[in-house]
Amino acid sequence: MVKSDKYAIGVDLGGTFIKFGLVSSEGVIEKKLKLKTNVENGHEPVAAAILEGVTGLIESGVKVTGIGIGSPGTVNPSKGTVDTPPNFPNWGVVPLAKIIEKKSGIETFIENDANAAAIGELIFGAGKEYKSFILVTLGTGVGGGIIFKGKVFRGEFSTAGEIGHMSINQFNGPKCNCGGIGCIEAYLGNKHLVAAVKKELPAHTSSKIYELMDYNFDNLTPQIISKAAEQGDQYAKSVIIDCGEKLGMVLASACNLLDISTIIVGGGVAGFGSVLYESAEKSTKSRVLGSISPRIKVIPAKLKNDAGILGAASLVFDKNK
Amino acid sequence: MVKSDKYAIGVDLGGTFIKFGLVSSEGVIEKKLKLKTNVENGHEPVAAAILEGVTGLIESGVKVTGIGIGSPGTVNPSKGTVDTPPNFPNWGVVPLAKIIEKKSGIETFIENDANAAAIGELIFGAGKEYKSFILVTLGTGVGGGIIFKGKVFRGEFSTAGEIGHMSINQFNGPKCNCGGIGCIEAYLGNKHLVAAVKKELPAHTSSKIYELMDYNFDNLTPQIISKAAEQGDQYAKSVIIDCGEKLGMVLASACNLLDISTIIVGGGVAGFGSVLYESAEKSTKSRVLGSISPRIKVIPAKLKNDAGILGAASLVFDKNK
Repeated sequence: MVKSDKYAIGVDLGGTFIKFGLVSSEGVIEKKLKLKTNVENGHEPVAAAILEGVTGLIESGVKVTGIGIGSPGTVNPSKGTVDTPPNFPNWGVVPLAKIIEKKSGIETFIENDANAAAIGELIFGAGKEYKSFILVTLGTGVGGGIIFKGKVFRGEFSTAGEIGHMSINQFNGPKCNCGGIGCIEAYLGNKHLVAAVKKELPAHTSSKIYELMDYNFDNLTPQIISKAAEQGDQYAKSVIIDCGEKLGMVLASACNLLDISTIIVGGGVAGFGSVLYESAEKSTKSRVLGSISPRIKVIPAKLKNDAGILGAASLVFDKNK
Repeated sequence: MVKSDKYAIGVDLGGTFIKFGLVSSEGVIEKKLKLKTNVENGHEPVAAAILEGVTGLIESGVKVTGIGIGSPGTVNPSKGTVDTPPNFPNWGVVPLAKIIEKKSGIETFIENDANAAAIGELIFGAGKEYKSFILVTLGTGVGGGIIFKGKVFRGEFSTAGEIGHMSINQFNGPKCNCGGIGCIEAYLGNKHLVAAVKKELPAHTSSKIYELMDYNFDNLTPQIISKAAEQGDQYAKSVIIDCGEKLGMVLASACNLLDISTIIVGGGVAGFGSVLYESAEKSTKSRVLGSISPRIKVIPAKLKNDAGILGAASLVFDKNK
């Protein structure tokens, strides 16, 4: 290796695992590592695990320019603090970037994981060609990040981009984990989506989904729906088209408010592929204001499984931070 | 007069009238003028009318620093152009600011009218104390402008802030003029609101609204609903509370996306007063993400009838443009 003259260490801090990558300025992951987060006893064991991972990736002869951390919770990038991520007990406001920087001797940057993913797409991925876009990640939850003129739009307290908690149905929508009604996450978040399909399946007895999930509803995942659609299953395809249509409902509101017309979709459910993107684009175009409609583009994210690591590493290479 | 050492001319360009004001840097209107827009024959007669109004306001001994124009349609403030405002036939992309600047010899600024109103609140009004806020104007339509860290957030093509065309009910909502479904404008825009009340009134025969509108449905306006509520009419009050609740539905989505937590409400329907603001604040707080909820504030705009003139004039005094 050592093909690049600049490397960063990307740290994807999750509730169960911390994933590490030694990443070149071209976005190539040269080495990877995964450690348990040890989340139970406050921030010190977590910081120790981050340092262990960082040390494990540093090689002699490789110049590491910086460390980037993508963290859940409310992150203040300029202060380098993380405020009580969900599922991280005994935190409070922790100056995590400073702790890592001091102990490693390497300049350290930190961002909310959704914003880090958006910067990752901007620096290494589908956002390279666009100065302004909304990143939507479809997974357990529906996350988002806003890039405007090459910079993250963070809002007042760095929590902007919560597109998952914009509602498309305030009157009769499903209840969301956040307490809201009709949030797009309450339709498209993995569990919600799977639950809705389970309810509908009895009316679609010839669907390929049955065989793919071994006739066991407990095995149903978005990936199985995706596979069934690829095999030509009409019901599975209709589920994906419906997801795109609902996504377009929320994107239309977001695009009208922000006047940003490029949407990059990533995350697990984005594995639904072109059927999803095309449906979402069609739905958005048909609902958004006429002046914006011709500009609307819904495209897939380029960063896939390692999006967390690459997003974190991109913080080091982002010149607009 | 001549109490201030700095004056601007604010030009509020409307489809029927152009309103002009000679405005001090403290936001005091010293002189006003109103001319017909003469909209039928393209931009030249409109530009001529603007110059006539400007000339009419200039006095010997008064130093006019600049002219500010608040215009409908898609405005490019850096190029100074206005692109085909609705109801202005035979336009296209007109370099209106340059035309006025060249002929008057006075530096001229132009903004979309909704953004101008937001800058007006920032420089002269309720936004003085806030660096970031969303301005919502409730009138014939529902307009909006976003101020973030003391600057207008314009989006990619200067049309950001269209909060009126964010939907709260994509499934069963009323159809909006924009073609969308369930846009907040389709609930709270004057005509829509009045139509909904007309439908409900037969079930509220003891409402004071009847007397106030002379038992003639054609006379019904938001002002009459407001008056009835002031006189203790319970039905009228419930209409206003319902407006606030619906406004909160859309504000929750907007605040989650932007992480901006101060909302300034202006325009005619805002005459509904504290009942409206309190209901909107309560509704927003109950729906927005828990991390943002304690910060939510819904407050009245300070600029009232002359908001258009003051907003336009504020463009001259805005140092962050």
